[in-house]
Amino acid sequence: MTMAMKRKNESEALRNILLIISYDGSRFHGWQAQPVRGCEEDRTVQGVIESALAKMHGHRVPLIGSGRTDSGVHAVGQAANFYTDIASIPEDRFVPALNSLLPRDVRILSSRSVHPDFNARFSARGRTYRYFLNCALTPFAHEIPYSWHIGRRPDLVTLNRMAAYLCGEIDFTTFTAAGDQSPSRCRYMYGASFFPEGNKVVFEISANAFLWKMVRSLTGTLLHLEKSGAAPEVFKQILDERNRSLAGPTAPAEGLFLWHVRYDSL
Amino acid sequence: MTMAMKRKNESEALRNILLIISYDGSRFHGWQAQPVRGCEEDRTVQGVIESALAKMHGHRVPLIGSGRTDSGVHAVGQAANFYTDIASIPEDRFVPALNSLLPRDVRILSSRSVHPDFNARFSARGRTYRYFLNCALTPFAHEIPYSWHIGRRPDLVTLNRMAAYLCGEIDFTTFTAAGDQSPSRCRYMYGASFFPEGNKVVFEISANAFLWKMVRSLTGTLLHLEKSGAAPEVFKQILDERNRSLAGPTAPAEGLFLWHVRYDSL
Repeated sequence: MTMAMKRKNESEALRNILLIISYDGSRFHGWQAQPVRGCEEDRTVQGVIESALAKMHGHRVPLIGSGRTDSGVHAVGQAANFYTDIASIPEDRFVPALNSLLPRDVRILSSRSVHPDFNARFSARGRTYRYFLNCALTPFAHEIPYSWHIGRRPDLVTLNRMAAYLCGEIDFTTFTAAGDQSPSRCRYMYGASFFPEGNKVVFEISANAFLWKMVRSLTGTLLHLEKSGAAPEVFKQILDERNRSLAGPTAPAEGLFLWHVRYDSL
Repeated sequence: MTMAMKRKNESEALRNILLIISYDGSRFHGWQAQPVRGCEEDRTVQGVIESALAKMHGHRVPLIGSGRTDSGVHAVGQAANFYTDIASIPEDRFVPALNSLLPRDVRILSSRSVHPDFNARFSARGRTYRYFLNCALTPFAHEIPYSWHIGRRPDLVTLNRMAAYLCGEIDFTTFTAAGDQSPSRCRYMYGASFFPEGNKVVFEISANAFLWKMVRSLTGTLLHLEKSGAAPEVFKQILDERNRSLAGPTAPAEGLFLWHVRYDSL
């Protein structure tokens, strides 16, 4: 038996569990567990959930996330899977079991058995983010960690005309962060739009996948262009130029929520 | 000149400034500045604002709040006034001046000059609170500090039939906390109602004033009665009995927001 076959047999004997996860990113160094540097590890969402899984299982259980989120970014619909050898727990009971072991800034919203081949990262067909812009002159104190305070009502017509260009296969080189390692800067956009919600404006954007810091770079640039009175076509030109130096400021992490990850195969 | 006249003349020479204040109560020991116990003072909203005022003025400036809020209770419309001897700052510029000195879990929303006799506590004609009930099976992580997780959709018809009794002059002895020192347990109710808001239910209640922990005791009791299937009249009977032992559990502080303080004289 080859190693690959052996691993396949082993993983088929285990149940593959998909978790939907909400977290308040304020006190996390992002999603991804960090390699230990010196004696103290950064607090990450993956890290605290893997600690809870290790407590339940009595051994290390790797957790596969749909993708990373940065320091300070929140989630209401992150998805992640792991293989469990605990046969006695019904699929939906991982919710209370894990929540009782987790700090309250991470909550498991649902758990279910999925196909052994399911992979939260590679099986994902689309990701949706929401970015919250706070339009109040002075923001309410309890809303500060969850929105970007722009202190004005932006022009939604202009913003939505710009956002209308975010559709289909697009090369996002303009909105690539320095240090990005992606082999391709092309992503398939399902759509993007701005809509009002109380004293806030929400920017919702969906794509097959996103480059690192791409949503925050897009949001910052769109708001910068709208504020400076640029025509919607200017945004299209900036996109087409594929030149990082044309992007505007990056919007802060605290306004961003990973909203939903879409899977076809479930 | 009597002491009272002297104080009156002095206070008339000063401007009386009314602040509208928002705070995230999570990391505060309530509104009221505590007397120092041992070497460390509890962190209170009044305390941090008085510290900022002292920095601005170069001397202590007492702040008069509309009323206290407990540890963990939030506010989007707390009101408070102080007398300032700084003549050079326009009335509305206390907002940026104070916000630049305050931690970000307290925000001054507005500032204005009011009559020298105005007193945020004694001039207040009404207070409105909102209590947020979180109905989601599992709450989103970022909503946990700002709502009470009840994990079910309560019956709004029953709750609103009960809340309809909260109108006019009422003796709230049933909903008085142990240790309450109020000379009278009667309060004048302007109204109370439950309404849905996304995955939450909001309980809004307005009165001339409230007893200590009264809103949380009412909320906990109403939800307890609704859950147990009691008829709305049972709530009326409990109110009429004026017996503390008939009140249900007290709802947690984190779901409560001081929403608005009403003044006639402005």
